[in-house]
Amino acid sequence: MSEPTAAIEYAQNHQEEILEDLKDLLSIPSISTLPEHEEDITRAAEWIAERMKNMGAENVRLMPTARHPVIYGEWSGAGADAPTLLLYGHYDVQPVDPIDEWQSDPFKPELRDGNLYARGASDMKGQLIAHFKAIEALQQTSGLPVNFKFMIEGEEEIGSPNLQAYIQANKELLQADLCLNSDSGILSEDQPAITVGLRGLTYFEIRLQGQHADLHSGTFGGVVDNPALVIARLMAGMKDEQGHITLPGFYDDVRELTAHDREMLPDLSDEWWKEKAGAKVLFGESGYSTTERARARPTFDVNGILSGFTGEGSKTVLPARAMAKFSMRLVPDQTPAKVKEQLLAYLEQHVPGTMTWELIEHAHANPAVIDTSSKAVKTAARAFEETWGKPPIYDRLGGTVPVVDMLQSELGVDTLMLGFGLPDDNIHGPNEKQHMPTLYRGVETVIRFLNEYGK
Amino acid sequence: MSEPTAAIEYAQNHQEEILEDLKDLLSIPSISTLPEHEEDITRAAEWIAERMKNMGAENVRLMPTARHPVIYGEWSGAGADAPTLLLYGHYDVQPVDPIDEWQSDPFKPELRDGNLYARGASDMKGQLIAHFKAIEALQQTSGLPVNFKFMIEGEEEIGSPNLQAYIQANKELLQADLCLNSDSGILSEDQPAITVGLRGLTYFEIRLQGQHADLHSGTFGGVVDNPALVIARLMAGMKDEQGHITLPGFYDDVRELTAHDREMLPDLSDEWWKEKAGAKVLFGESGYSTTERARARPTFDVNGILSGFTGEGSKTVLPARAMAKFSMRLVPDQTPAKVKEQLLAYLEQHVPGTMTWELIEHAHANPAVIDTSSKAVKTAARAFEETWGKPPIYDRLGGTVPVVDMLQSELGVDTLMLGFGLPDDNIHGPNEKQHMPTLYRGVETVIRFLNEYGK
Repeated sequence: MSEPTAAIEYAQNHQEEILEDLKDLLSIPSISTLPEHEEDITRAAEWIAERMKNMGAENVRLMPTARHPVIYGEWSGAGADAPTLLLYGHYDVQPVDPIDEWQSDPFKPELRDGNLYARGASDMKGQLIAHFKAIEALQQTSGLPVNFKFMIEGEEEIGSPNLQAYIQANKELLQADLCLNSDSGILSEDQPAITVGLRGLTYFEIRLQGQHADLHSGTFGGVVDNPALVIARLMAGMKDEQGHITLPGFYDDVRELTAHDREMLPDLSDEWWKEKAGAKVLFGESGYSTTERARARPTFDVNGILSGFTGEGSKTVLPARAMAKFSMRLVPDQTPAKVKEQLLAYLEQHVPGTMTWELIEHAHANPAVIDTSSKAVKTAARAFEETWGKPPIYDRLGGTVPVVDMLQSELGVDTLMLGFGLPDDNIHGPNEKQHMPTLYRGVETVIRFLNEYGK
Repeated sequence: MSEPTAAIEYAQNHQEEILEDLKDLLSIPSISTLPEHEEDITRAAEWIAERMKNMGAENVRLMPTARHPVIYGEWSGAGADAPTLLLYGHYDVQPVDPIDEWQSDPFKPELRDGNLYARGASDMKGQLIAHFKAIEALQQTSGLPVNFKFMIEGEEEIGSPNLQAYIQANKELLQADLCLNSDSGILSEDQPAITVGLRGLTYFEIRLQGQHADLHSGTFGGVVDNPALVIARLMAGMKDEQGHITLPGFYDDVRELTAHDREMLPDLSDEWWKEKAGAKVLFGESGYSTTERARARPTFDVNGILSGFTGEGSKTVLPARAMAKFSMRLVPDQTPAKVKEQLLAYLEQHVPGTMTWELIEHAHANPAVIDTSSKAVKTAARAFEETWGKPPIYDRLGGTVPVVDMLQSELGVDTLMLGFGLPDDNIHGPNEKQHMPTLYRGVETVIRFLNEYGK
C-alpha cells in the first residue's frame, strides 16, 4: 500500500477545521420526525449542498421526495476509467427527549474530554464530515483517484420511507461501482471493525379506542373495557418473561447461527456490554450470548406507550384511548412483509371487540449481509490496519441501515460500511457524542481506503 | 311537611344569581394535582371564604394542610338546641386534558341547552353553590333552623391525602350531628336518588427503571430488558381478558351481593349505560349486571401509562424507564391496606431483577355504606319527593368519597349524600357540565331538607 502521506498530513493539519465544520452542522436541529423542524431540515440540507459545491461537486441539488429532500451531487474528476463510489449518508437526526437528561444543549455542541456532545455527533453528521474531509484531503494533495456520487438523505431516522421510491426513480443517476456508507462504527477507540451484517427492522404503531371519551373510573369502572390495559395485554402477549418472542410464527424464517457465524462475531464480554449499556443486569433469550442476541438474533421491543393521565399526582380517569409504538429487529431470512402478516393475524385474534384499532407501519427494512471477500472489504481492512496498527474485526451490527438492502436489490450495488462511531456514543439517547480522536483516525482511514481502491 | 314557601320563592327568584355565582367560581382553574395552579387554588379558596362571610358565617379561615388549605367556617344562628350540620365540599377540580376534546374553554363556562359546560361544574362547584344558596334562601326568609359548620377541602381530586390528619387534629372543631356531603348526584333529571353506598379506592403509581438511560433499540435490542414491556406485563397480569381481577387474594374479602342488595340497585338497562358511557360495547366480569359491576363490585383500572417515545412518527429507542398509574375500586369488606399488601406481594414476585422499582400510593379510602333508616335519609327522601313529585331511589355510587369513611371513623359523624350531578355530566372528562334546571330543583330540595331536619 503506497502511503498517501501528503493527504494524511493535510488532514492532520486541518483537524481544527473538521471540528468547527462539525460544530456548525450540529447546531442545526434537523430532527426529521417532528414537523416543527421542517425549516431546520432544509437548512441542514443546504449546508451540505454548499459543502459539496466547495469540494467541486457538480449537478448538486436538493431532490424532493414525499417528505424531506435527498441531496444529490457528483464529482468525476478521476476520469472515465476510475471507479465511481456512491457516498450515502443522512443529515437528519433523532429527537432529543428526554431533554432534561442532557448535560449540555443537544444543539450547542460541547467538547468535553475529547468527546463532542450533540445530537447527531456520531449518528451521523460526524461521519459525513469525516468522509468529506478525506475527499478534500486527496483533492488538495496527491489527487482523488475515484469518482463520486453523493446521495445524502433526510429521512433515515424515520426509517427512510421515501428512499426506495427515490432510488427506483433515479436508477441511472445513482449507478455506481460501490456504495460507501458511513452510517456505522467500530468497536472501541482501539479496535477497528468493519460491519458485514445488519439487522432488518419493522416498526409499528397501534392505536386503540374504547368508548368515545375519557370517563370517571368510579362512575364507569366495571362498565367499559380499558384501552390502557388492553394495549398492555397486547404488548405483553408478544414476548414472554424469558425474552422469547411469542408472536406466532415469528421465528419460522430465522436462519440459525452456524459455528462460523458465531466465530465471526467479536468476543465481547458481558462486562463490556453492561458498561456500554449502562445496565447492571443484562437480559435476553436463553441459549445465546449477549453479543449474539445483540447482533444476530431478532428482537421485539416496545419503543413507546401512552394512555390516560401521565402528569404528576393522580387522576381517576378511565382512558378512552391508548397507543403503543413497537418494533422488531430482523435477521436473515426474516422479511418485514411476513412479520407484518403475523402481527395482523395476532391483532385480529387478540384485540377485543370492545376496541376499535388502527395499525400504522412507520418503517421496514430487510436484514443485510455483506461479502467479506470483496475488494472493498479487503481494501478497507488494510486501511484500518495501516491506521490503527491492528486488523479490524468483521462485525455484524444490531442496528438497521435500510439503504444497504435497497441499493443491492434495486441497483445491484454492494455497500461498504465505513464509519467511526463507538458503541457508547449514546446515539438516539441523551448526551450523544462523537469521540474526536477516533474521528480524526477515521479521516485517515478513508484517505487510505480511497487512495488504494482507486488504483 | 310544612312548605318553606318563601324560601323556595326566594330561590326561584335568584336563579340568575346562582348561575352568575357559579360561572364566577368556575372561571378559577383550581386544579389540585398540578403545581402550576397553586395560586388558582388559593383564589378559589378565598372566593368561597368570602361567600361564607357574606352568609354571616363566623370564624371563617383557610386552615393550612401539608398541601392545599381547608376552608373552615361556622354559623350558629339557629341556637344551641338546633342540630349542627357539617357541610362538606371541595373547591378543587380535575385536570382538563385531553384539552382538544373540549367544545369550549373548560374555564370559560358556557351555557348550551340548559347545561353549563366547565371543569368542576358538576364535580362539584355547582353542588356547593346550590347548598350555599339554599342556606341563604332560608336565612333571608323564614329562617334557617339548623346550625352549620363548613369544611371545604382542596384535595378531593387528588384523593384527600391530608384530610384525615386535618380531621384528627380538629376533632372538637368539626363535631356535628350530621355531615351534609353534596359531592354526589341523582339518576336523571326525572329520577331523584340518594346515595347509600360508596366504593372505596386505592390508587397507585409504579415507576420502573432498567438501564441508566434510553438506548438505541438496534444496538442494544436483545441486550437489556425493556421497562415498557415489563410494565405492560405487570398491568396485564392483574386482570384477565374476561374482566376478572387476577391479583392474588383480591376477592378474598369481597362481600357477596345479597338478593336485597341487588334489589336496592336501580334498574338501569345496558342501553342506558351505553349512552351514558358513550360506548358501543360494555365490558366487565361475568355473573353480574352492568349496574352491579358499576356500583357494587370491585374494579381494577389502568389510569395512565407512559414510557419511551410517544411523539409523532417513530424513534427506535429502548426506553430506560416506564410508569403506570392504576387504581382499584373497593367494596365492603375490602380494605386499602390489605389490597396494598397483596399488590406488594405481587410486585415482589413479578418485577424482574432487571428493573428497579418504586411504588407510590396516591390515595386510599375505605368503602362506605349509609343507613337508610336514619332521620337524615328519611328527611331527604321526603324533600326529594316533594320537589320531584316522585320518591328517590336508594342508590350505591361507583365512585369514592373518602371523607365519608373518615368522618365516621374519626368523629362518629354519619353522612348524608345530597348532590345534584347527573350520570352523563362528564365529570373528570372533557366537556364536563351541570344541568342547571336540575341544580335549581336541587336548591329547592336542600331548602326543604334543612327546613324539616331542623324542626
